[in-house]
Amino acid sequence: MSHAKVLILGADGYIGFSLWQFLKARGYEVMGADNFSRRKLVEEVGSDSLIPIDSVPARMAAGIANINICTYTDLLKLHSFFKPDVIIHLAEQPSAPYSMRGVQECVYETQVNNIAGTQCVLWYMKQMNPEAHLIKLGTMGEYSDWIYKGFPIPEDPRVSAMLMEGGQEHVYTEIPTPRSAGSFYHWSKIFDSNNIEFACKIWGLRATDLNQGVVYGTRVDDLQFRSRFDYDSYFGTIVNRFVTQAVAGIPLTVYGAGGQTRGFININDTMRAIELVIENPPADGEFRMVNQLTEVFSVNEIASMVAYHTNCKVDRIENPRIEQEEHLYNPKCNKLREWGLTDPRRMISVLPEMVEDVSLFYGNIRTEVIQPQTRWEEPFREEAMV
Amino acid sequence: MSHAKVLILGADGYIGFSLWQFLKARGYEVMGADNFSRRKLVEEVGSDSLIPIDSVPARMAAGIANINICTYTDLLKLHSFFKPDVIIHLAEQPSAPYSMRGVQECVYETQVNNIAGTQCVLWYMKQMNPEAHLIKLGTMGEYSDWIYKGFPIPEDPRVSAMLMEGGQEHVYTEIPTPRSAGSFYHWSKIFDSNNIEFACKIWGLRATDLNQGVVYGTRVDDLQFRSRFDYDSYFGTIVNRFVTQAVAGIPLTVYGAGGQTRGFININDTMRAIELVIENPPADGEFRMVNQLTEVFSVNEIASMVAYHTNCKVDRIENPRIEQEEHLYNPKCNKLREWGLTDPRRMISVLPEMVEDVSLFYGNIRTEVIQPQTRWEEPFREEAMV
Repeated sequence: MSHAKVLILGADGYIGFSLWQFLKARGYEVMGADNFSRRKLVEEVGSDSLIPIDSVPARMAAGIANINICTYTDLLKLHSFFKPDVIIHLAEQPSAPYSMRGVQECVYETQVNNIAGTQCVLWYMKQMNPEAHLIKLGTMGEYSDWIYKGFPIPEDPRVSAMLMEGGQEHVYTEIPTPRSAGSFYHWSKIFDSNNIEFACKIWGLRATDLNQGVVYGTRVDDLQFRSRFDYDSYFGTIVNRFVTQAVAGIPLTVYGAGGQTRGFININDTMRAIELVIENPPADGEFRMVNQLTEVFSVNEIASMVAYHTNCKVDRIENPRIEQEEHLYNPKCNKLREWGLTDPRRMISVLPEMVEDVSLFYGNIRTEVIQPQTRWEEPFREEAMV
Repeated sequence: MSHAKVLILGADGYIGFSLWQFLKARGYEVMGADNFSRRKLVEEVGSDSLIPIDSVPARMAAGIANINICTYTDLLKLHSFFKPDVIIHLAEQPSAPYSMRGVQECVYETQVNNIAGTQCVLWYMKQMNPEAHLIKLGTMGEYSDWIYKGFPIPEDPRVSAMLMEGGQEHVYTEIPTPRSAGSFYHWSKIFDSNNIEFACKIWGLRATDLNQGVVYGTRVDDLQFRSRFDYDSYFGTIVNRFVTQAVAGIPLTVYGAGGQTRGFININDTMRAIELVIENPPADGEFRMVNQLTEVFSVNEIASMVAYHTNCKVDRIENPRIEQEEHLYNPKCNKLREWGLTDPRRMISVLPEMVEDVSLFYGNIRTEVIQPQTRWEEPFREEAMV
């Protein structure tokens, strides 16, 4: 499989651009595509990649096609000169707070964009390329809400259950694995997963729903060019944001009690994990779920680790999100380990190189974009009555 | 509540146009809105309403506003002269086979249209009208697939469950009521339900998800104007389609074994049911589910009833859908009964008036649009390889 043809959708992104280089270096024939919308969204919230990245024309000149996967004919055009064996779909609006920001951001930039894009990829596969293996980036956040109660987050779209109703028990060998999200963005990822599973069932497609923990890091070994690095309150994920705050000399912003617990993975291990998924494809017609994380931490634990390396201060601010701040968290992550994702990088060891890299671009930090701007619940009732 | 202000979205449709007249006659202050897209979609598949209906200009002149709820500013315009206490949302693409027809029909006409429309209504409520009661038409089809195993389809978004994992049992007082759909249309309705429930949770909105069985009938008592009546394989639901086939003298098309079992309700009882939901509103912040059906029949039983009244023939054709053709079906329907939906009309008694009404427009029947045109699964693999 080392010469499989791989199409990366979202090849201009944080994961995508590194993956594009990584897989080429590993001998795959790789095609990248992106509509470069992430750049616009980050600009729109007043921020920019901390680490300078190539211009759009430079990336296009390097071979990343400028297409929008929500336009079906764009996928057909791409197919006319590149028929992939593997489609890695990273081309979604990835921010929960951005999806809660307003009607345009929620409805069109997040839910319509993500659902329509994934649907167009599914129809493209059905009509033009049914043998391809779709690897779709999902998120462990598809399990938030109820699953915090401690159930081992499974790597399976179905689980066995006994349902209680009116004093009676009903046993089922499989119900859809219960999912429930905490933002309209996370709901869009659940909707994607449902559409993909259904397409596999009726059209015989095959897909891996790769439920990823939070990715962090500033570099992938041996790659020539850097990926973008976001640190603002919308597009900067927690570890990258905390390191930036520490370097900027402003306190880390812990939302609420800080017991919120999540899975994490370093970007180097993300590269390895995706290659392992390519090398271990599902059967025809199979829809499978793979959890992708290597460590589990609470927000407080991450703040402590960053503070250990940088002596920064920690600020506990009012939580702008509606979420549980103390809960159990028990994800499974067996498949990638079985395929060979062993000896992952540890966050505590990666933080020094992150601090070093972010410090190089200290001058680019806009401290005003780090404080959260969007609240899940607004005190709208009085306003609306005016 | 009899003078509540009611906004009907989808007021040009089969249910909507009758409801618009019915609620006005019952003393409500009613505003109707529609983008009249249903007419275009039915035309596009080569059909038309069997019962002649008013033109778009005539309906607009009668007071139905021409707006698209997927355009958020259209909702704001409407709000500037009509602030509803109740919003009845019937404005969706309602056909499962249409949603499976092709990429444009599935992605944009069904999923994007339905999800974006519902989302815009939720944002409108959050920002302008948080006290309103949203009544959203859902479908009992949100429970297809796994629920056919006989579990009483609940009227609750959460159920108690014991989940089995690795030989261990985990008990939960509530998991999201498992749902799993059989078409991309039905999935869009599940996505709507999820978005609405989440909006109620974070924004304190209140909503009734009205999971409706299949509606049938040609008339609502005492109304001056008729609603549209579709009988084609895309937009004609089973009872209306069977009656039309019988009148046209062509055999009823039973898909597969005919054991497919569903809930049904006559259009007169739909009117009563929706008024009961208006009169029994949920609490602030409450998301509730109500099942709306009065009888349960298999396809074979409906074919027998229609044949009993008309002496028509019954054809068993290859099933174009992927679905179970023999299964248990056990929906609950307690809430509407408690509120007073008793003595519903029985299908066996309504069929004669339907045959009479459809016979009046015998000359309008286009027999070629009744045979199913869209298959869930196509033999695409060989074609795609060419």
